Amino acid sequence: MSKHNVDLLERHRETLDGAIAAIHGRHHHTPFPESPSRSVYGEDAAARGRAAFEAHLGRDFPLEGPGDRGRVTTERSPYGVRLDVSYPRADVDALLTASETALHEWRRVPLPVRTGVALEILARLNRRSFEMGHAVQHTSGQSFVMAFQAGGPHAQDRGLEAVAHAHDMIERSTGEATWVKPRRRGEPITMAKRFTARSRGVGLVIGCATFPTWNSYPALFADLVTGNTVIVKPHPGAVLPLAITVAVARDVLREQGLNPDVVLLAAEEHDDRIAGVLALRPEVRVVDFTGSTEFGDWLEANARQAFVSTEKAGVNTVVVDSTDAYRAMLANLAHAMSLYSGQMCTTPQNVYVPTGGVPTDEGHKSADTFAADLAGAVAELAADPARRVGVLGALVDARVRDRVDGATDLGRVLLASTAPEHPEFPEALVRTPAVIGLDADRREVYGREHFGPISFVITTADTARSLHLMRETIIERGAITAAVYSTDEDVVESAEEAALDAGVNLSINLTQDVFVNQSAAFSDYHGSGANPAATSSLTDPRFVAGRFDLVQSRRHV
Amino acid sequence: MSKHNVDLLERHRETLDGAIAAIHGRHHHTPFPESPSRSVYGEDAAARGRAAFEAHLGRDFPLEGPGDRGRVTTERSPYGVRLDVSYPRADVDALLTASETALHEWRRVPLPVRTGVALEILARLNRRSFEMGHAVQHTSGQSFVMAFQAGGPHAQDRGLEAVAHAHDMIERSTGEATWVKPRRRGEPITMAKRFTARSRGVGLVIGCATFPTWNSYPALFADLVTGNTVIVKPHPGAVLPLAITVAVARDVLREQGLNPDVVLLAAEEHDDRIAGVLALRPEVRVVDFTGSTEFGDWLEANARQAFVSTEKAGVNTVVVDSTDAYRAMLANLAHAMSLYSGQMCTTPQNVYVPTGGVPTDEGHKSADTFAADLAGAVAELAADPARRVGVLGALVDARVRDRVDGATDLGRVLLASTAPEHPEFPEALVRTPAVIGLDADRREVYGREHFGPISFVITTADTARSLHLMRETIIERGAITAAVYSTDEDVVESAEEAALDAGVNLSINLTQDVFVNQSAAFSDYHGSGANPAATSSLTDPRFVAGRFDLVQSRRHV
Repeated sequence: MSKHNVDLLERHRETLDGAIAAIHGRHHHTPFPESPSRSVYGEDAAARGRAAFEAHLGRDFPLEGPGDRGRVTTERSPYGVRLDVSYPRADVDALLTASETALHEWRRVPLPVRTGVALEILARLNRRSFEMGHAVQHTSGQSFVMAFQAGGPHAQDRGLEAVAHAHDMIERSTGEATWVKPRRRGEPITMAKRFTARSRGVGLVIGCATFPTWNSYPALFADLVTGNTVIVKPHPGAVLPLAITVAVARDVLREQGLNPDVVLLAAEEHDDRIAGVLALRPEVRVVDFTGSTEFGDWLEANARQAFVSTEKAGVNTVVVDSTDAYRAMLANLAHAMSLYSGQMCTTPQNVYVPTGGVPTDEGHKSADTFAADLAGAVAELAADPARRVGVLGALVDARVRDRVDGATDLGRVLLASTAPEHPEFPEALVRTPAVIGLDADRREVYGREHFGPISFVITTADTARSLHLMRETIIERGAITAAVYSTDEDVVESAEEAALDAGVNLSINLTQDVFVNQSAAFSDYHGSGANPAATSSLTDPRFVAGRFDLVQSRRHV
Repeated sequence: MSKHNVDLLERHRETLDGAIAAIHGRHHHTPFPESPSRSVYGEDAAARGRAAFEAHLGRDFPLEGPGDRGRVTTERSPYGVRLDVSYPRADVDALLTASETALHEWRRVPLPVRTGVALEILARLNRRSFEMGHAVQHTSGQSFVMAFQAGGPHAQDRGLEAVAHAHDMIERSTGEATWVKPRRRGEPITMAKRFTARSRGVGLVIGCATFPTWNSYPALFADLVTGNTVIVKPHPGAVLPLAITVAVARDVLREQGLNPDVVLLAAEEHDDRIAGVLALRPEVRVVDFTGSTEFGDWLEANARQAFVSTEKAGVNTVVVDSTDAYRAMLANLAHAMSLYSGQMCTTPQNVYVPTGGVPTDEGHKSADTFAADLAGAVAELAADPARRVGVLGALVDARVRDRVDGATDLGRVLLASTAPEHPEFPEALVRTPAVIGLDADRREVYGREHFGPISFVITTADTARSLHLMRETIIERGAITAAVYSTDEDVVESAEEAALDAGVNLSINLTQDVFVNQSAAFSDYHGSGANPAATSSLTDPRFVAGRFDLVQSRRHV
């Protein structure tokens, strides 16, 4: 290993140390600034980023094979912009052969070098955050600012968080030791022992269309630091953000004299379905997936040779009991329900309110009044053209559009979805959120996920019943998030108990600029692994520990 | 929670701190002394232990239900002693109901209390090590001294190691944090966050007949500290050691005002097969198993709702290349092959030697000479009545006897098994080890496990070929241990490379009183999870991380 390699870790030593301190302290930490401002990223960063994005359009993305199956062009901007970027079409056998070849070297590369490579990749991705913002915007449909943040610095933070966990756990578990066993008679027995983290093999990271980088980076970077190679299989609708990522990773590897095939892109036609083929191959020992419950469950059941980590559908829940900040609560909920048109895996879907209504700082509000006020808050947000563009973004595809267009059949329409025109992109697929009223007995409707801008206000007998329903639906269908609003500490405690039973992360009385759908890297866990919505959390010990084994040797000294 | 509970941790604080320091330093550490001497355990400990054991014989073991399915009496001493101890027969529904009821409380008991309970159980088990020694001897067939050590202090060390890992990981990942996010304008956003480890549910620990406590304690204690309840399903042939363990655990829980059903015994008739029934129940979220590859694979494939950890069959390997301590090497190997009549999951089975022979400090030895000398060393050990009793013990059951009696058909007989009489127990099932010579092309014989006192000396083209075969058979069939003898550092390095590829722990040039089949708790890993012999290692981060999820709550301050 050349000296050059280790220098990479030294260059980023402060970043690593800060991240490791943060995952233990769980304090606020964000080494990659979320603000797309000139003062942070430089005067011309925005213009250069846009130009770099536009330079990709209509071109062959600069990646070759492995294999020789031609190229694919599969992306369609939800904003109507022509993308026409082509990528090498995945050749399963060629990819696995290349990845296995790279694995033999990569798993033997010392931890500090692997970590240094990962940190350098993240640093370069950070410098390309504007380009990434446009790439994420025009594949996922997020608004530009959200795409910049979630697809750039926030994703990088989550990637760094995984680097910190993986590096920390391996460093703690490996190294050398001298073992001295005293004997009754004679010299003690002395042995030298060496403990090595052995990566499991080829990792497969299956991306989603809505958060192509944010949901992939923890797996990608955890795999790299633990010594697995990575085949990145993007959603055919959101290839560019991951193609850029893979290209950056390969550049760094190549510059370090390492085999760039440690990171490979597996782009495919919409109906190629290679994820399932790759996931069952014996070489693939780690599979990470974000997407449908159906395919996630299939992977868990069938990719038996691999450590499988999935994030799937869920029924996120809000229990409203009482509040001393009625307007702020409504605004917070309306924002949470509207962000990226409800296309976040963390978007609240079910809002439970007691039939008898809720006490507030503005007096008692009946259930109907609360429902109307919440719908009104959503309508107000959606009516403001500037906020609408920034908050809603666009719908990722026509299936979401069809779902929201059909939402009026689901119950009492508290707020109907509309289709306003986007000021910048006339072809953008935009719908404002629908809010539907339901009674608690309509569980066949609200008991499953309706992905997109569709929320339910569900009237229940009382808060105890709301918590009961929250607990049951989450145990049955899963959830990434839950929230409660109450001025009564006993109710808050009951909500915490219900959340513990259901295994869901709980936000209490959010009224400021924190939304239930947002989790802060290094501090908030995303998912829990304790309910059907996910098998692990970003980033908990299990997410990392599944990616390597410990192997030792020992000898007399 | 009463103050009394936390005192338990304080009482054992030094034990915990020492164990946590040891799992990180991997140095020699053994808080539970392995010597059954009076100076350590007290003048009358041996006599009291024997009396306590004998008091169980022919009696109802003092445990009741839950449920009402009568009692079972299933144990048969390999030494021919009548045991006739009866246990409540498992009632699956009643066990699960009781365990789930206990779970609701137990998972909410604070970590320091759970850890304190675990440490107190271990301390009491240590005081009963002589009683345990007899119980393990007369169920597994181990010699008394080995049963005392492996069933008592060594098992307790492994239990404590798991306590240390679980406590350390949870303590690192949980607690409270204040999160302060600066804002460009106005006050920062401040949130209070709480992180809780949520146990997965009911744990099922399926014991084996050969090491009923040693192989169960890591899972049992990891489950307890992570907040899972435990149903202990002993092998019908080795119930008493785990019944004693369960009774001790229940006493401690009861004294602490906790529900004793946190730990339950599930004894069964030989053909009840309740392990498979329990393992598939949705309440059961953790399954630990030691035993056959067939049932282990079945559990992994079918107990999909659970975190499954298995230890199964394997083909342990020794590669002999050269040595500067020929006699010591032979003695060490002979001892390793003979210990507990080869009935350890760590017993070396395949000894590879080059056709051209090996250079030694006693001159060049041809392959035939080496094979004859190794067989001779085993014969010499077995011929010494005192060593025979202490080293071999007895065969656990007639299936092992039948296997060794049929070993002569497997290849060239280098050493035939004999059936000497046991000086103390005339009915004891004793066989001396068989050593069989094979050529490398007989992989259909040596490529699978022959559980019991059967080893193969396999001649290969050269050491490179030996390492190749080691690598291949382990990748295919698994192994818990591997060893190499060589005076050539390049060969040692190649062996380390092969061991890394195969994912097996390697012992190098063992000649002193350390045997390849023995792993020292807190320092040596047992198994690796990287080959088919086991899914995780005792104790690595994954073994613990699979037993809990992290759940958080957050609120504005």
